[in-house]
Amino acid sequence: MPVTINGQRLWERVEAMAKLGGTPKGGVCRLALDDNDIAAHRLLADLAKQRGFRLFLDDAGNLFLRREGADASLPPLVSGSHSDSQPTGGRFDGIFGVLAAFEALEAIDDAGVTTRHSMECVIWNNEEGSRFTPGCMGSGVYAGIKTLETARAALDADGISMGEAIDRLHAQFPDAERRELGSPFSALLEAHIEQGPLLESGGEVLGAVTGMQGMRRFRIEVVGKEDHSGTTPRSLRQDALVDAVAIINELHALFWDEKDEIRFTIGHFALSPNAWSVVPGKVTFGVDFRYSDAEVLKSLGDRIEPLALAAAKHCQISVTQTVSEAPVHFDGAAFEAIKASVSASGQPWRTIYSGAGHDCRYFPPRCPTGMVFIPCEKGISHNEAENAEPGHVAAGAQVIADSFLRLDASLA
Amino acid sequence: MPVTINGQRLWERVEAMAKLGGTPKGGVCRLALDDNDIAAHRLLADLAKQRGFRLFLDDAGNLFLRREGADASLPPLVSGSHSDSQPTGGRFDGIFGVLAAFEALEAIDDAGVTTRHSMECVIWNNEEGSRFTPGCMGSGVYAGIKTLETARAALDADGISMGEAIDRLHAQFPDAERRELGSPFSALLEAHIEQGPLLESGGEVLGAVTGMQGMRRFRIEVVGKEDHSGTTPRSLRQDALVDAVAIINELHALFWDEKDEIRFTIGHFALSPNAWSVVPGKVTFGVDFRYSDAEVLKSLGDRIEPLALAAAKHCQISVTQTVSEAPVHFDGAAFEAIKASVSASGQPWRTIYSGAGHDCRYFPPRCPTGMVFIPCEKGISHNEAENAEPGHVAAGAQVIADSFLRLDASLA
Repeated sequence: MPVTINGQRLWERVEAMAKLGGTPKGGVCRLALDDNDIAAHRLLADLAKQRGFRLFLDDAGNLFLRREGADASLPPLVSGSHSDSQPTGGRFDGIFGVLAAFEALEAIDDAGVTTRHSMECVIWNNEEGSRFTPGCMGSGVYAGIKTLETARAALDADGISMGEAIDRLHAQFPDAERRELGSPFSALLEAHIEQGPLLESGGEVLGAVTGMQGMRRFRIEVVGKEDHSGTTPRSLRQDALVDAVAIINELHALFWDEKDEIRFTIGHFALSPNAWSVVPGKVTFGVDFRYSDAEVLKSLGDRIEPLALAAAKHCQISVTQTVSEAPVHFDGAAFEAIKASVSASGQPWRTIYSGAGHDCRYFPPRCPTGMVFIPCEKGISHNEAENAEPGHVAAGAQVIADSFLRLDASLA
Repeated sequence: MPVTINGQRLWERVEAMAKLGGTPKGGVCRLALDDNDIAAHRLLADLAKQRGFRLFLDDAGNLFLRREGADASLPPLVSGSHSDSQPTGGRFDGIFGVLAAFEALEAIDDAGVTTRHSMECVIWNNEEGSRFTPGCMGSGVYAGIKTLETARAALDADGISMGEAIDRLHAQFPDAERRELGSPFSALLEAHIEQGPLLESGGEVLGAVTGMQGMRRFRIEVVGKEDHSGTTPRSLRQDALVDAVAIINELHALFWDEKDEIRFTIGHFALSPNAWSVVPGKVTFGVDFRYSDAEVLKSLGDRIEPLALAAAKHCQISVTQTVSEAPVHFDGAAFEAIKASVSASGQPWRTIYSGAGHDCRYFPPRCPTGMVFIPCEKGISHNEAENAEPGHVAAGAQVIADSFLRLDASLA
């Protein structure tokens, strides 16, 4: 292996990033382009500048840190992930992939290797979708799957638009050059924690990712009538919570599968006016449905609306699909480079299918795309208790460095 | 009838009050001791001072406006209600009873009647319990049912304590004398909208209230584990929403009664972290259970905790009773005065049982206590659409004036 990454340096970076938005419980609350997230961008940008790497920002708020290659005519090899977190998120989700990519660039730089391709570390903007919905916004806009206009119009809970947040990011990075949205990549790699239990339970340290579940999301709104809880008989109520629960019961039955392969979650649920002595006039909740098979995503997902309409007894129901992502299949040069790298690593490894969605999902039609997973403790993620081993973090970064060099050698 | 109230003046006051915290939908958001609520206190206090009435504030934030009687040795005859509202409340709940009492004082004053008893209009502090929980706080502390210390310690959503809010009220009323908590009343009357459909559907304008439902409230906390919604199999989840829904299903079955007399409401429900792609780690919800019979309140209410513990499959459950109020029965001199007044009013009337709780609930052990109801449109209350007829509002105030004078004549 021509280049060895510096595991200690990488771990120190993980710890430095964990302080930006760090929570008392050891997790991270670093929402897209909030002060902590911008500080994370700045931290890495300053390290990049010390090495003479160039900075690029695009209109969607994605940041690229670039080590120049010998052949300026070749599109870059790119790797990275996101720096934002869930509100009660962990120290590894996203930022590990950013730091692994940056460590790969530094290790290659330290080794004095001249590569043909320029190599870049990317921080995709707003993967989590917890401050601005939907998630995978920066990568989706870059790949042309989502529009910049819609992304800029997204509002956070305080009424700040993504457009304002991106403009603020640009204002704080006068040292960044402009990157055109959609500029081609020679390949895209992403390292990530698994966010599931398979690697740990199998004793593997690395997973070459073969694909990614598709996802559909639906916002269900139940509109009833506010009434006094002490005086209004049940028969005269239009209780939005009662109908919401009836709908959820039907959805739980519809999405129950013996094999436990379907991922069905109601993670967002809001009552109005949410007062003890008022019959709820309105409930809004979110259905997150993921599966590997496009046909099942279509057939089951399409049953949500009629089922919700039928289950509601007293209220007006509206069902709106907010996200629809097809399942993704990885093969080709980037997947082969990842597989060759994990295979040569000396670490136990396997191929693995991704339950979670990631930024690179939009790129297989555009360029060779591949992912590598490392284990996270007990499979716990989107949780302040999220944890990963320093040795596994280093092994993941080594795969990115190695895959970069394999692709630099093999790709046109 | 010796004194006639001024219905037009009263209706103008209703409209003036509706502007303090008025919402675009025609309702009111005037939370306990917020700027609008203090403005409502000020509006009435200034009117009182113009008539030479005295102002009194007590340590619990209750405001009394007093027209002096001839015999200073007699405790006052008191009537009133509250000026605070639900977050999406109406223009009549509470404030109608305050204005009816004040109109009674003004009408008696205009008529130049010298009464034996002093007569007072009271604004009880924080009846709704929507900014600070629990409700009926000012009346409960005055009556010695709740402690001042606990009331002062209650925090609103911004972390402001009721104690701070009361101190701010006192600072803005340097013109108020101090009233000792628990100072005796000769009688207490309260006018209120029915907040239910019975009067309207029966064509009655007035209701002499015979009693008030008891109430028990329970906070149910469901603690599971946050996980990634895309990767965590159902079998490994501890989804707090799934268990909360299972508990609610059981509660709906337990509290279903053929006769539709039991009032069971889940009006407050909060998910954490409330993010689309995170399996909910925690749900907290509130059960509001009201009924007229103390035995049923006890037996059904006591089943909530064991049932919730049994229904939960994956999470830790805790059930905390936050309110327990016994049913109230009205009789004695104040009830008889109300009944005589509605009967003499020339309006269609009935006796009626109250589904809602009201401030005067704590006073039957302390002094003769009575209530009068007027209809509200379609029985809708705790809703911005809440509405009442000017003629009914006037009829209710006339009953307070008349009952005041009857009690002034009959009581020792």
